Amino acid sequence: MDIARSPLARPFPEMPPIAGVTLRVARAGYKAWDRADLTLVELTEGTSVAGVLTTSACASSEVEMGRDQVKRGHARALVVNAGNSNAFTGLRGREAVEQIVGQVAEALGCGTHEVFVSSTGVIGVPLPKDKARAGVEAALAAEPCGWEDAARAIGTTDTFTKGAGAAAMLGQTRVELAGFIKGSGMIAPDMATMLGYIFTDAAVVPGFLQEMLEKANAATFSCITVDGDTSTSDTVLAFATGKAGNRPLASWHDAGADAFYAALLEVCRELAQLVVRDGEGAQKFIEIAVTGAESDDSARRVGLAIANSPLVKTAIAGGDANWGRVVMAVGKAGEPADRDRLSIGFGGTWAARDGQPLPDYDEAPVAKHLQGEDVRIDVDLGIGSGRATVWTCDLTHGYIAINADYRS
Amino acid sequence: MDIARSPLARPFPEMPPIAGVTLRVARAGYKAWDRADLTLVELTEGTSVAGVLTTSACASSEVEMGRDQVKRGHARALVVNAGNSNAFTGLRGREAVEQIVGQVAEALGCGTHEVFVSSTGVIGVPLPKDKARAGVEAALAAEPCGWEDAARAIGTTDTFTKGAGAAAMLGQTRVELAGFIKGSGMIAPDMATMLGYIFTDAAVVPGFLQEMLEKANAATFSCITVDGDTSTSDTVLAFATGKAGNRPLASWHDAGADAFYAALLEVCRELAQLVVRDGEGAQKFIEIAVTGAESDDSARRVGLAIANSPLVKTAIAGGDANWGRVVMAVGKAGEPADRDRLSIGFGGTWAARDGQPLPDYDEAPVAKHLQGEDVRIDVDLGIGSGRATVWTCDLTHGYIAINADYRS
Repeated sequence: MDIARSPLARPFPEMPPIAGVTLRVARAGYKAWDRADLTLVELTEGTSVAGVLTTSACASSEVEMGRDQVKRGHARALVVNAGNSNAFTGLRGREAVEQIVGQVAEALGCGTHEVFVSSTGVIGVPLPKDKARAGVEAALAAEPCGWEDAARAIGTTDTFTKGAGAAAMLGQTRVELAGFIKGSGMIAPDMATMLGYIFTDAAVVPGFLQEMLEKANAATFSCITVDGDTSTSDTVLAFATGKAGNRPLASWHDAGADAFYAALLEVCRELAQLVVRDGEGAQKFIEIAVTGAESDDSARRVGLAIANSPLVKTAIAGGDANWGRVVMAVGKAGEPADRDRLSIGFGGTWAARDGQPLPDYDEAPVAKHLQGEDVRIDVDLGIGSGRATVWTCDLTHGYIAINADYRS
Repeated sequence: MDIARSPLARPFPEMPPIAGVTLRVARAGYKAWDRADLTLVELTEGTSVAGVLTTSACASSEVEMGRDQVKRGHARALVVNAGNSNAFTGLRGREAVEQIVGQVAEALGCGTHEVFVSSTGVIGVPLPKDKARAGVEAALAAEPCGWEDAARAIGTTDTFTKGAGAAAMLGQTRVELAGFIKGSGMIAPDMATMLGYIFTDAAVVPGFLQEMLEKANAATFSCITVDGDTSTSDTVLAFATGKAGNRPLASWHDAGADAFYAALLEVCRELAQLVVRDGEGAQKFIEIAVTGAESDDSARRVGLAIANSPLVKTAIAGGDANWGRVVMAVGKAGEPADRDRLSIGFGGTWAARDGQPLPDYDEAPVAKHLQGEDVRIDVDLGIGSGRATVWTCDLTHGYIAINADYRS
């Protein structure tokens, strides 16, 4: 099935190369397609790594291995296989990953714990070792390529390539960040895992990079949902080569740490939103801002309960300012809330305040707002100071068409 | 919008009257429709009541009041308003309920705590007191009616009337149970709450009736989902008039308690399944049996994670034996599971065993099974003896059409 480019797509940004990062792609032929589907990123010696990986109890071997590797903090290479997720493949799947790691470690003269592997695509089929071996060999011999080539090679059901960059000044030193990501549903017909990678030439010690990535993740990747489904392979990795030459960032007290974090957060937020913008069947991008919650975490859970509600998502698809469905979603979230303090608005207009519809509620500006591509829902719980913003897309016939009409 | 009768509908059963229960309906005119929309059930003196009401933090006044009334254990009347849920209406909504309770209590000469009220329909509009008063008056003066008339009068977006009956022998005494229910999505365009009522002529003390209803609820109403959304008004009430003359059941040790519970469970299960069979846009009825979990509760949560997964539901809609999506749903459930012990089957055929696809897996019988209206998914977690069965329906274009294309 040919899936049209999402109407919410954004152009791939111009991003400068990152010193210490070399991108290469090759065609392993994991599927019968005529495109590169194996990405090999070579990282200079001394590169720090941080990662956030799916908590799924059914994670792939790649994820299990990645969880351990991240703890050691150093990376020399990343390999991404597209077209086969290698999930739910038992020992044979594990062997395929170990083969890739061994092959790359030998070629680059590094430790096996420094070679990261991700796979995305069909599940239950062990990654074919012969294709992987030939693909890695071809990639090692390939000419370096640009960001968009790599972003395209890691894609599966994505309808557009997704990248985001930023820069920060650490004292007198300018550092660059560049990232790319794939994902369209949390899972699509072929397990369209979310895989995101961020690279920087800043020097950051691994533990602090991990701390910053987890913090940024909590406010970005953990705040998006397309269909509430979580892949067995979701992965975000951040690599810091240190080539910019700044004094390594090691804590929030270091000069420039805040500036670097702000840039990292910006890249993570943009990448996360791009995944939502490629949500299966998405016609509208929805931002849900929750305030007045007991805590930030509680606000995020309320926001996700709203974002995951099929009734809210279909109402937005239909351009219907159905705040009753938002009330329902708040009620079911299981978080502290008080019906009589709850306020709900769309696009800056309050529809209900303190548990009651506003007597002078004017639906006209709301109806107009809901005609647009970008929809904003405000929810104030009125009981505390916790706040969070989450992002999702609407639920349309397109989602059903992609996921039900198509036989995987 | 006219919504066609669900293809999964069942005929309304023949059920005998229950001694001590008098059903009446009237037209309050909560909506511009030409049908009865107010149901008044009169219950004989000494009727015990038990109830399970939504845990939503945004529950309606009816639910808040009902939670308190159930604790007192006695009922003389039930009023159900259809067309207006009276949810999220603040003080004015509360006053309307109090008016109904007062009016009925005066007419029947009972305490206000013995008059139960439920409302279902549009939210955010206070129940109009004048219509409610006239409707109750008309109902009080109306001729008694039958089960299906009452089942029809409580409906909103339901596409068919739903009832279930059973009988049990308590020693030499035969007791009857009859119930009816409404609900099609957890919430539909007009907040199609699930409201279920079960009546019996058995004598059961309130505390034990409550214990049995909660136990039956955990295995039935708590095991169904259409879209994972929970209404602000979901309510199940059970009334026992005692007119059969048996010695009142007061504990599991009493003779006949097991037989009565079995009948109650049967009625609850049938009513719960009927709601799923009227799921918005449903084309297939899906039973998900989870075994080998750490506990029964854990099994139920895993089952509901599968049942609520849009990707699983769309796969079934498409007749696709996509066990990878079931793996994903198990993984995200957050319950104890071990990828390498997980087995998944459809219609009695295992597709994957112990974390790997079966080498000799024959998809032909599975494909045939998935063509039918009734689909069965088996999941064995392989780590314990916990088990549960949950029910849901598929996710189709019909769901989107009902919830997005229609402006409420």
